[in-house]
Amino acid sequence: MIGILHHPIKPESQSLAQEIDRFLRAQGEDNIQHESAWEAEAALQWLPHADLLITLGGDGTLLRAARMGAPFEVPMLGVKMGRLGFLAELMPDNWREPLRRVLAGDYWLEERIMVRARVEHSNGKRSTHEFDALNDVVLSRGDLARVVRIDLQLDGGYLTRYTCDGLIVSTATGSTGYALAVGGPILPPDLRNILVIPIAPHLSMDRAIVLSEGTEIRMRAYADHAAMLTVDGQFVVAIEDGDEVVVEGSPHKARFVRVRERSYFYQALMEKLRWTE
Amino acid sequence: MIGILHHPIKPESQSLAQEIDRFLRAQGEDNIQHESAWEAEAALQWLPHADLLITLGGDGTLLRAARMGAPFEVPMLGVKMGRLGFLAELMPDNWREPLRRVLAGDYWLEERIMVRARVEHSNGKRSTHEFDALNDVVLSRGDLARVVRIDLQLDGGYLTRYTCDGLIVSTATGSTGYALAVGGPILPPDLRNILVIPIAPHLSMDRAIVLSEGTEIRMRAYADHAAMLTVDGQFVVAIEDGDEVVVEGSPHKARFVRVRERSYFYQALMEKLRWTE
Amino acid sequence: MIGILHHPIKPESQSLAQEIDRFLRAQGEDNIQHESAWEAEAALQWLPHADLLITLGGDGTLLRAARMGAPFEVPMLGVKMGRLGFLAELMPDNWREPLRRVLAGDYWLEERIMVRARVEHSNGKRSTHEFDALNDVVLSRGDLARVVRIDLQLDGGYLTRYTCDGLIVSTATGSTGYALAVGGPILPPDLRNILVIPIAPHLSMDRAIVLSEGTEIRMRAYADHAAMLTVDGQFVVAIEDGDEVVVEGSPHKARFVRVRERSYFYQALMEKLRWTE
Amino acid sequence: MIGILHHPIKPESQSLAQEIDRFLRAQGEDNIQHESAWEAEAALQWLPHADLLITLGGDGTLLRAARMGAPFEVPMLGVKMGRLGFLAELMPDNWREPLRRVLAGDYWLEERIMVRARVEHSNGKRSTHEFDALNDVVLSRGDLARVVRIDLQLDGGYLTRYTCDGLIVSTATGSTGYALAVGGPILPPDLRNILVIPIAPHLSMDRAIVLSEGTEIRMRAYADHAAMLTVDGQFVVAIEDGDEVVVEGSPHKARFVRVRERSYFYQALMEKLRWTE
Repeated sequence: MIGILHHPIKPESQSLAQEIDRFLRAQGEDNIQHESAWEAEAALQWLPHADLLITLGGDGTLLRAARMGAPFEVPMLGVKMGRLGFLAELMPDNWREPLRRVLAGDYWLEERIMVRARVEHSNGKRSTHEFDALNDVVLSRGDLARVVRIDLQLDGGYLTRYTCDGLIVSTATGSTGYALAVGGPILPPDLRNILVIPIAPHLSMDRAIVLSEGTEIRMRAYADHAAMLTVDGQFVVAIEDGDEVVVEGSPHKARFVRVRERSYFYQALMEKLRWTE
Repeated sequence: MIGILHHPIKPESQSLAQEIDRFLRAQGEDNIQHESAWEAEAALQWLPHADLLITLGGDGTLLRAARMGAPFEVPMLGVKMGRLGFLAELMPDNWREPLRRVLAGDYWLEERIMVRARVEHSNGKRSTHEFDALNDVVLSRGDLARVVRIDLQLDGGYLTRYTCDGLIVSTATGSTGYALAVGGPILPPDLRNILVIPIAPHLSMDRAIVLSEGTEIRMRAYADHAAMLTVDGQFVVAIEDGDEVVVEGSPHKARFVRVRERSYFYQALMEKLRWTE
Repeated sequence: MIGILHHPIKPESQSLAQEIDRFLRAQGEDNIQHESAWEAEAALQWLPHADLLITLGGDGTLLRAARMGAPFEVPMLGVKMGRLGFLAELMPDNWREPLRRVLAGDYWLEERIMVRARVEHSNGKRSTHEFDALNDVVLSRGDLARVVRIDLQLDGGYLTRYTCDGLIVSTATGSTGYALAVGGPILPPDLRNILVIPIAPHLSMDRAIVLSEGTEIRMRAYADHAAMLTVDGQFVVAIEDGDEVVVEGSPHKARFVRVRERSYFYQALMEKLRWTE
Repeated sequence: MIGILHHPIKPESQSLAQEIDRFLRAQGEDNIQHESAWEAEAALQWLPHADLLITLGGDGTLLRAARMGAPFEVPMLGVKMGRLGFLAELMPDNWREPLRRVLAGDYWLEERIMVRARVEHSNGKRSTHEFDALNDVVLSRGDLARVVRIDLQLDGGYLTRYTCDGLIVSTATGSTGYALAVGGPILPPDLRNILVIPIAPHLSMDRAIVLSEGTEIRMRAYADHAAMLTVDGQFVVAIEDGDEVVVEGSPHKARFVRVRERSYFYQALMEKLRWTE
């Protein structure tokens, strides 16, 4: 079964979904499901059974799909409709031939780690919610005009206290996102490391730290106002005073269908950074 | 006349205000005014007539005093009660002897430029409000999980579009504050330059620019949600879509009474940055 | 009188010099001098009397011309033949019309400060040599595999000890050169500030400092092997143990003839940094 | 058998070597070898048979020992005599008790990867020499006043051309050395990644890249003068025009004897960076 997730608003996304549907049926695929990428509940009806998930939209749509589909590790194939994009594989004006290759089994699977955040409440009760992220989780100030202080522990050992706008915990995938904007290093997508880097550190530790996937990263925020946890830049959880945010490698991986050659990442990177000749 | 601004909450600030009052009266000063630094309206009754303004608190209190007192350019003498501090001159446990020197005229005046921001509404109507800042004005995203796009013009010429968390326009004084946290250069307090530097620039211009005091800096924000203008990290103005924020050197200066030697700034700087031996 | 400095090796530079000579004579100029930019002594015969100095080459040729011509402040007009270039005004395929404008007086003069370095020997004898630089002077290690330690004094006050590859003292002009490569801020060419920034600081002060033109910058290097002073990236002076290098604003200015509009710098900058759309 | 490597010049290093020798004999060890860390040939007589290698000196001595001892992977125990030090385990005034613990088997072994560089000559002949490095190999300009251009290939794919002072290829161990001085991220010592980061990149790729241990890193330098390859900051190999430098994970590991707890690295790091309270 093949699923198609389209952008809920962009009309070109929905008409492309129809075109791809027709193309797939012409190729003999008759079990096809459609859904808006914003309708998680509906998509979760068929997502566990999907052999391929085609997403139409920007990186945002793929991030959303990755979090939804993570427990089932459905192979994802992104058609890029937004501006930025390290995740999507196809362009809206050139998807037929590559998609034919995918249907014929002529592709490779790229597996990317995700991170998992949980909030431990200060009353000792473990949060019932955990959040998987493909890019990053960010613990930051909740009030824009104030800094936040964050104590960081790695594997139970105290590292330092940051005075900053926030602390980013990023995967290799996220290293080309927010982490890059604050000066972080680039990690190619196959790396299984986790990156910790502060946003606007004021007279405090200002270097990125690269960790192994198994490290437990524990953060505690001290803010005049509430702090916030942002997951993949897409949704926000309020963090109460005394709560701790714990991030570790997720047991789930995001799997991307690739038809480009394995070195595609570096070429895309140099284009984004404008360091091509 | 000598004014004393104390912190509205910290009790040690108010008891120190009483002590200083007694000391000043013992020295023959009998025209002394007290006010909370948060009571701008009350303080403005006597501020224009003050020959010296003593502030008790952290840099926050001094920033507040500087903005209030700017039109009258009252010499300010800060007693440091918070942690950070490049502005205050005296410590709460050692103010008698230095204050005696000030009363005897044995001091020097340090003049620091301020910047002035005004908001020009898209309907062409010039904002009636202007804001003076001693440290910085920051145009940033209003929603924490989204970037903002900011077009920058310098003296009427288009420079570039930033995709970022925000854009800081800072004085030399502010160069050791927020601007430092995002990688900016240090400008000693006597410099009359203005610094422009982005917060978390994503695949866009990432260098600080140092400008002359006379440059007109014009910013226009494009955000999914409202953008915000933060003045000296202390108060926030909502910026509507299409509004432009214009920053220039203010006609007002902040004047600080100093008894330490003129090289005090570099010593304080190296201590803060921990690069002393 | 008009002087023409050409590149000593590039043949296209010499043939262009002939073309320009013919063009100038056709315009009625009959007092024209030619020289290789590397023949300082010969050029100095006529340089003091030149009303305009046309240079053919890259930024290197202009830097050389600026240092040679500084005492006479001859207006310089650069024709760009190399790759990089913030200094040259004309392109080899489009110089006739702009040059006609210059001859007709339709231009503006851009004045840029230079810095002056002198070496004070440890035996107390003042160096007889002083070096003017338009871009920068760099005190660095002489042996590539070792760090150098540099003590920095500003206006006689000790700032800090750098452990690094070297220390750059740059003008606004130099802020787009070596200083930019080590993370420095950008200073538009009319700024009269001096920039100090370390190369590869190891566990020591790592921020750029922007200073006023009048500041005395005194550096003393401690190296296992000799340190070196590089002037405008073009020539090198050995620094013996115990020598001090003192840098200040030079009394000389470099003067550039401009026909482009006054905002040309920011446009050129965004192109170089690739932040144009 | 236990080997002791002392510093060739520092007399305190040699007298400490005698003291340790007496202590070891008193503990019943009678097969002890001494050598200067600079006498590789002599040390290589007994190094393959050593069960423990005690080094007396700074990080330099340990780097030297690591390269010498790499093929035999002798456990090393450093007594720190210099200033800097992330590698040494003992202090000259407190080594008896920890050494007793080591002899009793109460320690853990820390394994750190090394990188291996080879020079491929342009005439197609593979270099007979390969160099193992525990910290880093640096390809840089040979003439201090000129930049070098370096083309970088990763696993056979072209990445970009750097215009810079040099390119650092570093292990996790080296991430707190030269790489840190140019803005690199921190990698705890157990990480098996390789870090690539430029020194003073001029208008070219300026971010660190973190790679997996298996990546082939191929560099080709274009310089007006010869380029140089520096190994662990300790010795230098001239690189001729057209030569290629290839770096990969070394088959050898450096093994360090540790008696401190496993979180020692972060504590040492925060001290060095001065971000302890």
